[in-house]
Amino acid sequence: MSKLQQTINHIGQLPAAAAERAQARLDSLTKPPGSLGRLEEIARQLVAITGAERPSVRRKSIIVMAGDHGVTAEGVSAYPQAVTAQMVLNFLRGGAAINVLARHAGARLVVVDIGVNAEFLPNTAPADTSGNVEFLRRKVAPGTRNFAREAAMTRDEAVAALTTGIEVVEAEIARGAELIATGDMGIGNTAASSAIVAVMTGQPVAKVTGRGTGVNDAGLTKKIEVISSALKLHALTPDAPRSTLHALDLLAKVGGLEIAGLVGVVLGAAAARRPVVLDGFISGAAALIAAGLAPNATQFCFAAHRSVEAGHRVMLDTLGLKPIVDLDLRLGEGTGAALAMHLIEAAAKIYNEMATFAEAGVTEKH
Amino acid sequence: MSKLQQTINHIGQLPAAAAERAQARLDSLTKPPGSLGRLEEIARQLVAITGAERPSVRRKSIIVMAGDHGVTAEGVSAYPQAVTAQMVLNFLRGGAAINVLARHAGARLVVVDIGVNAEFLPNTAPADTSGNVEFLRRKVAPGTRNFAREAAMTRDEAVAALTTGIEVVEAEIARGAELIATGDMGIGNTAASSAIVAVMTGQPVAKVTGRGTGVNDAGLTKKIEVISSALKLHALTPDAPRSTLHALDLLAKVGGLEIAGLVGVVLGAAAARRPVVLDGFISGAAALIAAGLAPNATQFCFAAHRSVEAGHRVMLDTLGLKPIVDLDLRLGEGTGAALAMHLIEAAAKIYNEMATFAEAGVTEKH
Repeated sequence: MSKLQQTINHIGQLPAAAAERAQARLDSLTKPPGSLGRLEEIARQLVAITGAERPSVRRKSIIVMAGDHGVTAEGVSAYPQAVTAQMVLNFLRGGAAINVLARHAGARLVVVDIGVNAEFLPNTAPADTSGNVEFLRRKVAPGTRNFAREAAMTRDEAVAALTTGIEVVEAEIARGAELIATGDMGIGNTAASSAIVAVMTGQPVAKVTGRGTGVNDAGLTKKIEVISSALKLHALTPDAPRSTLHALDLLAKVGGLEIAGLVGVVLGAAAARRPVVLDGFISGAAALIAAGLAPNATQFCFAAHRSVEAGHRVMLDTLGLKPIVDLDLRLGEGTGAALAMHLIEAAAKIYNEMATFAEAGVTEKH
Repeated sequence: MSKLQQTINHIGQLPAAAAERAQARLDSLTKPPGSLGRLEEIARQLVAITGAERPSVRRKSIIVMAGDHGVTAEGVSAYPQAVTAQMVLNFLRGGAAINVLARHAGARLVVVDIGVNAEFLPNTAPADTSGNVEFLRRKVAPGTRNFAREAAMTRDEAVAALTTGIEVVEAEIARGAELIATGDMGIGNTAASSAIVAVMTGQPVAKVTGRGTGVNDAGLTKKIEVISSALKLHALTPDAPRSTLHALDLLAKVGGLEIAGLVGVVLGAAAARRPVVLDGFISGAAALIAAGLAPNATQFCFAAHRSVEAGHRVMLDTLGLKPIVDLDLRLGEGTGAALAMHLIEAAAKIYNEMATFAEAGVTEKH
C-alpha cells in the first residue's frame, strides 16, 4: 500500500467521550461555566485530538512549503515569479514576517523547497539568529506547468508532493512537535487555490477569486477569466463527484506543488493525532483537498484566521471551521497560523493549569 | 492642582505625522503593502502613542483592580459577594485564569485591593510560582454602598480611587512597563458598568445589560429593573451633558471602586504615553468615564476583545475602538487583555524586525 493510502487509512474520527470529559473538567475550574468561550472549545478539541489527559502544545512547528506556478505566465499576480525564490532566501535570513512571528510564537520554522523554479546554491543555509529555522531541499519539480494550457502536475508529481508533505510532518512529530502550523510561499498560488475552491465548493469562480498579493481591477478580471477557462479545459466541474480520485485529479490539474505538500502535512498530522493550524486561503485549499481524500482530516484542524481574500469565508464554511482571529491578514507564509498558535496554547494552559473550585476554596454559582 | 487634574492636563493628542512615518516604514517591509491588516494598524498606533522610532512593548503589566459592590444585596449576580475576596486569594495563589494567561503572556500581574469587603491577613502574599504576581493593599473603602438606595461612593472616595489607579500605573511605568492591561474582579460589577454605559451612550438599560457571570432570565429582569430605578433615583439621564463633572458624578453614584481605579489606570497610562489594553465590559465602562474626563484618553487604548456581554458592542462603538480578538469571552480579570497583548507585541516586532525590500533583495510589486 502506498504511503499516502496508509496515512489516509490511519485518520480516525475524534472520540465524542473525550470532549465530554474535557467539558466536565472545564466546568470545575474557577470561572463561571463557559465564560472562556472559544478557548474552552479549543481545549475540548485538543483533548479529543490528542487523547491526552493534559494536552500539551508547547512544542510548535510551522511548515512553510514553497513552490512556483506556471500560470504566472498568464499575468495573474502582482509580483514576478522570481519573488518565490527571493522570499525563500529571506526566510532563511530571518527577515520575513513569518520569521518574526515564528520567533514570537517560540516555534520552529521549517522551510521546504518542494517546487521552487530556482536552484539554491549548495551552501544555502539558514542564518536566522534564532537557530530555529530549518531548510529542507525536497524539490519534486521546478514549479508547475501553466494550468491555463495543460495539467499543472502529472498524477505522479502530485502524489510525490503529497508524500513529501507527509514525510516532512512525520519528521517534525518525531522531533517532538505537538502543534503543527501550515504556511505557503508561491507567486501565483491564490489562482491555483481559487480554482480548487471553485470546484470543491461549487461556487462561481468570480466569487472565490480575489486580489492575492494585490492585482488591480484589470488583473482581477484576467485572473477570473484564466481560472474559468482552465476549469473548462480540464473538464473540472463542481458537479463532478468529490471522490478521493476527484480530489487528487483536481490537485494535479490546477493545484501546486506547495499546496500538495500542505495536503500531505494535514494528512500526516491527522494520522498522528496532532492538531494542525491552517493559515489562510492557500492552506485552506490544501485542507479542502485533504478533506476530499480523508473526510475526517478536518476534525484535526484549526482555522487560524479569516483572510480578506475573497472565497475564504465560503472555504471555511465548507470545511466547517471557525477562524480564531480576524485581523484582515492576506500575507500567507503561515503568519496567521503563527499568531493563532499562541491562543491555542493559551487554551491548553487554561485547561491544564487553572485551579478547580474545590482546590481554591471558591464558592460555586448559586 | 490635584493629581487627577494634573494627569488629565497631561493627556495630549496623538501626532498624525508619526502614523504617516510608520506607514512609510511598513510599506518598505518585505510583504505586499497592507497585507498584515490590523497588525499594521496596531503598529502605526504604537508608534504614534510612544513616539518611539522602534516601539517596544516587551515589558508588560496587567493591573487587576478588585472591589465589592453594595448592589449585590439586590440579587443582581449569580455569585455571592464573598467570591470577590476568594478570587483575590486565588489570584495570589496562581490558580485563576488570569494567572495562567499572565504567565503565558510573560506579563507582571498586579492585584490591587482597592475596595474588597474583607480584610486580608497581614501575611497574605502571592504564592504564584512565576514570581510575577504582586499584591497591593490600597483599600479606599470596604466595597461600595448599594446604589439602588444611595450613592455608591462619595465624590471624595471616587477621586481617591481614581488617584490610586493613577499611582499604581505610574509605579508600574517607573518599573519599566511598556504595555499596560486592565483587569477587574468584583461581584456585581457588570450591573455598575451597565448603569455607566446606559448613561454614557444614551442606550436603554435593557439593551446594555447582560447576564454577567450568568444570572438566569428572572435575575436578568431583576438586574435591569434595579439599574433603571437607580438611574431615576440618582437623576442620571442620558441627556445630561457629558462634562467632566458629569462623568465623575456618574462614577460616584453608580460606579465601583475598582472601576474608578481602572479609570485612573487609563488616565495615568495615557498621560505617560503608554499603550493600554482594555479588557472587556468593566474596563470599557472605565474607559468611557476616562473619555468623559479626558476625551483624548481613548487614543492610547486598544480594545482587547468583544465580550459576549450585552452592551459591549455599543460601548466599543462609542469609544471608537475595534476589538482585536473575538473569542466569546465573558470572564473579566483581564483575561482578554492578556491574550491581546501577544498580538500587540507581534505588531511591534513586525515593525521593528522585518527586513525591507532593499535589505532582502526582493523585487517590489510591479
